[in-house]
Amino acid sequence: MSPPREDAVLSTMQDVPLLISRILTHGSTIHGSSQVITWTGEAEPHRRSFAEIGTRSAQLAHALTEDLGVREDDRVATLAWNNAEHVEAYFAVPSMGAVLHTLNLRLPAEQLAWIVNHAADRVVIANGSLIPLLAPLLPHLPTVEHVVVTGPGDRTPLEGVRPRVHEYEELIAGKPTAYDWPELDERRAAAMCYTSGTTGDPKGVVYSHRSVYLHSMQVNMTESMGLTDQDTSLVVVPQFHVNAWGLPHATFMTGVNMLMPDRFLQPAPLAEMIEAERPTHAAAVPTIWQGLLAELTARPRDVSSLHQVTIGGAACPPSLMEAFDTLGMRVCHAWGMTETSPLGTVARPPAHAVGTEEEFAYRLTQGRFPTGVEARLTGPGGERLPWDGQSAGELEVRGAWIAGAYYNGVDAEPLRPADKFSEDGWLKTGDVGTISPDGFLTLTDRAKDVIKSGGEWISSVDLENALMSHPDVAEAAVVAVPDDKWGERPLATVVLKEGATADFKTLRSFLAGEGIAKWQLPERWTIIESVPKTSVGKFDKKVLRRQYAEGKLDVQQL
Amino acid sequence: MSPPREDAVLSTMQDVPLLISRILTHGSTIHGSSQVITWTGEAEPHRRSFAEIGTRSAQLAHALTEDLGVREDDRVATLAWNNAEHVEAYFAVPSMGAVLHTLNLRLPAEQLAWIVNHAADRVVIANGSLIPLLAPLLPHLPTVEHVVVTGPGDRTPLEGVRPRVHEYEELIAGKPTAYDWPELDERRAAAMCYTSGTTGDPKGVVYSHRSVYLHSMQVNMTESMGLTDQDTSLVVVPQFHVNAWGLPHATFMTGVNMLMPDRFLQPAPLAEMIEAERPTHAAAVPTIWQGLLAELTARPRDVSSLHQVTIGGAACPPSLMEAFDTLGMRVCHAWGMTETSPLGTVARPPAHAVGTEEEFAYRLTQGRFPTGVEARLTGPGGERLPWDGQSAGELEVRGAWIAGAYYNGVDAEPLRPADKFSEDGWLKTGDVGTISPDGFLTLTDRAKDVIKSGGEWISSVDLENALMSHPDVAEAAVVAVPDDKWGERPLATVVLKEGATADFKTLRSFLAGEGIAKWQLPERWTIIESVPKTSVGKFDKKVLRRQYAEGKLDVQQL
Repeated sequence: MSPPREDAVLSTMQDVPLLISRILTHGSTIHGSSQVITWTGEAEPHRRSFAEIGTRSAQLAHALTEDLGVREDDRVATLAWNNAEHVEAYFAVPSMGAVLHTLNLRLPAEQLAWIVNHAADRVVIANGSLIPLLAPLLPHLPTVEHVVVTGPGDRTPLEGVRPRVHEYEELIAGKPTAYDWPELDERRAAAMCYTSGTTGDPKGVVYSHRSVYLHSMQVNMTESMGLTDQDTSLVVVPQFHVNAWGLPHATFMTGVNMLMPDRFLQPAPLAEMIEAERPTHAAAVPTIWQGLLAELTARPRDVSSLHQVTIGGAACPPSLMEAFDTLGMRVCHAWGMTETSPLGTVARPPAHAVGTEEEFAYRLTQGRFPTGVEARLTGPGGERLPWDGQSAGELEVRGAWIAGAYYNGVDAEPLRPADKFSEDGWLKTGDVGTISPDGFLTLTDRAKDVIKSGGEWISSVDLENALMSHPDVAEAAVVAVPDDKWGERPLATVVLKEGATADFKTLRSFLAGEGIAKWQLPERWTIIESVPKTSVGKFDKKVLRRQYAEGKLDVQQL
Repeated sequence: MSPPREDAVLSTMQDVPLLISRILTHGSTIHGSSQVITWTGEAEPHRRSFAEIGTRSAQLAHALTEDLGVREDDRVATLAWNNAEHVEAYFAVPSMGAVLHTLNLRLPAEQLAWIVNHAADRVVIANGSLIPLLAPLLPHLPTVEHVVVTGPGDRTPLEGVRPRVHEYEELIAGKPTAYDWPELDERRAAAMCYTSGTTGDPKGVVYSHRSVYLHSMQVNMTESMGLTDQDTSLVVVPQFHVNAWGLPHATFMTGVNMLMPDRFLQPAPLAEMIEAERPTHAAAVPTIWQGLLAELTARPRDVSSLHQVTIGGAACPPSLMEAFDTLGMRVCHAWGMTETSPLGTVARPPAHAVGTEEEFAYRLTQGRFPTGVEARLTGPGGERLPWDGQSAGELEVRGAWIAGAYYNGVDAEPLRPADKFSEDGWLKTGDVGTISPDGFLTLTDRAKDVIKSGGEWISSVDLENALMSHPDVAEAAVVAVPDDKWGERPLATVVLKEGATADFKTLRSFLAGEGIAKWQLPERWTIIESVPKTSVGKFDKKVLRRQYAEGKLDVQQL
């Protein structure tokens, strides 16, 4: 960065930092009558105005500071569903200068403990309904000094534990309803979230006030979600998952009402809350929508209010998108990851495609990059690839709300592993795909699943999809295995349907007929009983690679 | 600002500055097919894609650097209408690290010269049609080394002048179509604009890359203008006036097409270009719309494409708003000033008022503050006033795109006059009004026009409106005059209609009947021939105050 000349013209703009406390103050005054509606499973949901969230956030900050001794930069964790108290923690903790650490309650207990200890959390704010998960962990969390419990749930398991236990409502009761939020540097840490990678230890991503603020503005831009105070957003995406896609902050900027499902994430209560509270927008991963669709098919309800549905986390199957279109819920794809805050792309079709046959194809892409997210594609040899919609490479991104490192503890330099960050500071997403000339991203593979053969990439997903379209094949997984000549070559592992007779030569010819290039066709084939799966049902290819390495697969060479 | 602790958790976000070059790169690639359409007065307007704007901006930067020797921080002025070349200067000059200085071509020649000299502009990029204005000034502009002329217009007056004269197209021809934009500090100066205050020298406001970038995001938020690549914006507000309300930058962020009227600002060509190019949005001051309305009434045209009209610069008369509603053009009030970039408020009615009788009243306010603009009201004694929709005070604002000082030359500290900036750095807007509990601003007076009587404020505008509703009154102006007991008291100056007979006592009783409080009723009255006006037709109250001070008015005391 070149320093300004001595006789440089100085900007006369005010130097006002972009802080989460400003979002809170704005939302709780100008949009004070907007609401956080929390589903309770009872006849009437719980309603709390943004104004009340504001006063209660101030009370929480007073309690944390004065009663629990929380100082700036201390980590305050939450183990909580989406609800009003969780929103209060979202604002109070960073606004007072401490760091909000949202814990993923779906993680195995061991990983959860590892993360709390790595972040050195001093306080855990937990929902009463999650005490059965938290209580057994506490003996393994030496840094945790206080547990603050919100909402219903049996407290018995917390009796006699080492950290002091507080009732949230008792703690904040009577505290002043205003707090003199400090004027922090906007680059200070505001919140942290660990990625649950399938390999190695979880990695901590630390968001700054600046990154959260800019990301919230982008969410509110019309090209992204474009919400206003006329909207109610059903926030299904968990608050422990990448800041609930930035919705709690974005909604406070523009007065969007939030409908929070708390622990009621099953299709039936979701359908019920949509009918009762009439949200206009919803955000969730595809599996939630798949379940909701089945529920609505079985028991139709009035869901006509919901005209915009943001889907991320995984690609939405075209059939699901069409089914939702039929119901009047317009699905909008978005792509992102913990490291990208998460807004990376949003699939709003370009003007020229609206109302044409191209429109649906654009909606099936991962979407278009906004100004704040710069993108490039890197090929197997490290070369930059063109945005031609054809050249597939690993996606790298840069921007003010994109991670450039991982947290490595208070006394350590941040981690910048070479497989995650380029030398010039871009994030290597690990996703492989193409970008069209007008900036639409289409992802095809995870980088670890492509086969690097003689300086070219072979898509395992393409091979799998082609194989699985053969009538004799029940499932198929293709993994990279070492090869002396080519570096890597594909190994095809196939599950045949009962009574099927196709042999490997037949399947190989079939692939060639399906448009797979000759040099991409696998030589190594094996029959397996079933494809190993991860806990969330994805193909677990590292098991197959290990079995191959250990010689446990009966591989035939063609 | 408190420094972070030594063991603070550091944000792991990338440190990417918010630069205008990033907006240019994004707009000219991802939105490369969007267009800047410049009206030429001929059958077919001139069309230039954002991609071409991108390559030509790079060429302009090369030409300025290599041929004209422009360095970072140098000031490059524009004397130009709204057109494609002006957009290129908007992006090329700040992106290369120089400072764009837009000259207001409506200013008197003397003031224009003062401003160019104060900013020490080295280059002026001028439209050929403005040579008659520029040429006589040049001998008085010692810092200007180069004049670059764009578009049609007789060049003869420039023959033999001292600065070197260049043809824009010849200058950029053959230059490389890419430029390695420097990675600047986002707080560096990007653009400057002088306010044409009625008293004292013009004051320079210097925008930073950061302020322009954040402001552009706000313009694109749905609560503000909320434009996307499906829109075409008719940018009537001049590019020499507060960055054309930020539209050139905002449109490049999201691919909004721009329709530029160049010098064709008369009602007939405006109506013609709306019919021909079908913009969806337009931005201009009320007088433009008043003229357009008359034109459309006289010669109806198809203006059905235009569904959003942003009006700022002055309040829109309710009758004009209603007339536009009838035509399907929805007027949206906005308030701002040169010092606020300018987006300060936008009058989108709150959700609860939409579709109700309250809606129109909300639309007549100046609008609601976004998160990035903090506001407070200060009373006559310096006290903070509540947001109750009743208490009138001077509006003060704070934010990252709000001025905190004025430019005072390269070697001088910025100016922070106490009547313009509070001790804690807020901008004193000089506007007096109220703020409702939900953050809607209603302006009633300029601070210099309110009467400070015994620690309370009397609105001259309220008194004038009440007086002018009397059938005998043609015009009335109320000004503050010194008073020993009360500090200031109102003087009513009245222009009677021909043959009118009302006396002062009658008018005073009439005011009381119109709801003016007893202590606010003027004691001092005078009849005048006509109210003195400024060059733009506003009441020139300083003339009246001077006439009173000099004893030139025949004042009667009641």
